Amino acid sequence: MPITTPMSWVVIVTVLALAQFIAFGMVVAWARVKFKVAAPAITGNEVFERYFRVHMNSLEQLVVFLPAIWLFALLVSAGWAAGLGTVYLAGRLIYFFSYTKDPKSRSMGFALSSLPVMLMILGVLVAVISRLLGHPLF
Amino acid sequence: MPITTPMSWVVIVTVLALAQFIAFGMVVAWARVKFKVAAPAITGNEVFERYFRVHMNSLEQLVVFLPAIWLFALLVSAGWAAGLGTVYLAGRLIYFFSYTKDPKSRSMGFALSSLPVMLMILGVLVAVISRLLGHPLF
Amino acid sequence: MPITTPMSWVVIVTVLALAQFIAFGMVVAWARVKFKVAAPAITGNEVFERYFRVHMNSLEQLVVFLPAIWLFALLVSAGWAAGLGTVYLAGRLIYFFSYTKDPKSRSMGFALSSLPVMLMILGVLVAVISRLLGHPLF
Repeated sequence: MPITTPMSWVVIVTVLALAQFIAFGMVVAWARVKFKVAAPAITGNEVFERYFRVHMNSLEQLVVFLPAIWLFALLVSAGWAAGLGTVYLAGRLIYFFSYTKDPKSRSMGFALSSLPVMLMILGVLVAVISRLLGHPLF
Repeated sequence: MPITTPMSWVVIVTVLALAQFIAFGMVVAWARVKFKVAAPAITGNEVFERYFRVHMNSLEQLVVFLPAIWLFALLVSAGWAAGLGTVYLAGRLIYFFSYTKDPKSRSMGFALSSLPVMLMILGVLVAVISRLLGHPLF
Repeated sequence: MPITTPMSWVVIVTVLALAQFIAFGMVVAWARVKFKVAAPAITGNEVFERYFRVHMNSLEQLVVFLPAIWLFALLVSAGWAAGLGTVYLAGRLIYFFSYTKDPKSRSMGFALSSLPVMLMILGVLVAVISRLLGHPLF
């Protein structure tokens, strides 16, 4: 299927988000060994639990991020979708490093990855409702 | 990308499902403070655990709901997809209130959100197999 | 929406992956009763925790598998997507049986379900970047 250049960037950001999530999962596997938390346990060492929670929280975010970026790219703007997706990727990386260093410092990375997602969801809603009302805004 | 009116409703139901899930996550953040369960812990207070489990269970359901509603909308009927998706949204809301009140009462809300998803999956399967066999049912 | 025969197979593999995940969730509900772990608890019996973790790990994989198989089907090859998706399904089944028997034996099933996903992600990335560079490989 042929795609436009901005759509190609949306695909690349999507692949990077998936790769980032896989990488976080690999870090959890490494942390299991390092902090001696054998499967199926997911508790028992507070530092292991930080890595585990970063992975889980990224799962929660990814599940919303993926439909948000694709609906936004298709209904509003593929270029902006790729841009907001890049902010999400950076936010998740900051979240990873701040949470594993000190769980109390996790707010900034969390905000930086959830705000672009909320913006995209809102954009999709405005796009669709404005079209239904006969005055398309995008 | 232009879309039909029924498809617009599928987009709106999708956005509402994402917003509902985000809202459940915000309630977990609030419950962390209220019941004094500091990150990265996810246990320690039975009432907090109810909010946490509602969020997790909604994650499990959302991951199946999203591909189910979209494949059903594209291959069977966008109007029915929006309708069944609305039942899912209501079921999740009932699940949230009944589970956090008393975990034993969670079955009804759970059934009301998982039955429409199973119906849509079944519909997609019937649509595709009947087409492969040369006798498209939808 | 009309679809090609290879795409029909991608839909079928997608539906089977969703059904498999739902089935794993039903086994967790059964294990709750059998091993007497009442909601909202998710710990307390080591064998229950194995079933619970298989379900959770399948959730993590499914969230990456779904966009991977669809982007790969659309941008590289629908036939190969269906084939690699079938390996994923078999890998998850082996993972289920080996993990619940002995968590230490879970590596093979895990590899068999994550390798096809990584291959598809890599394929999508190569497809998109080669197109952006003006020398499409797929």
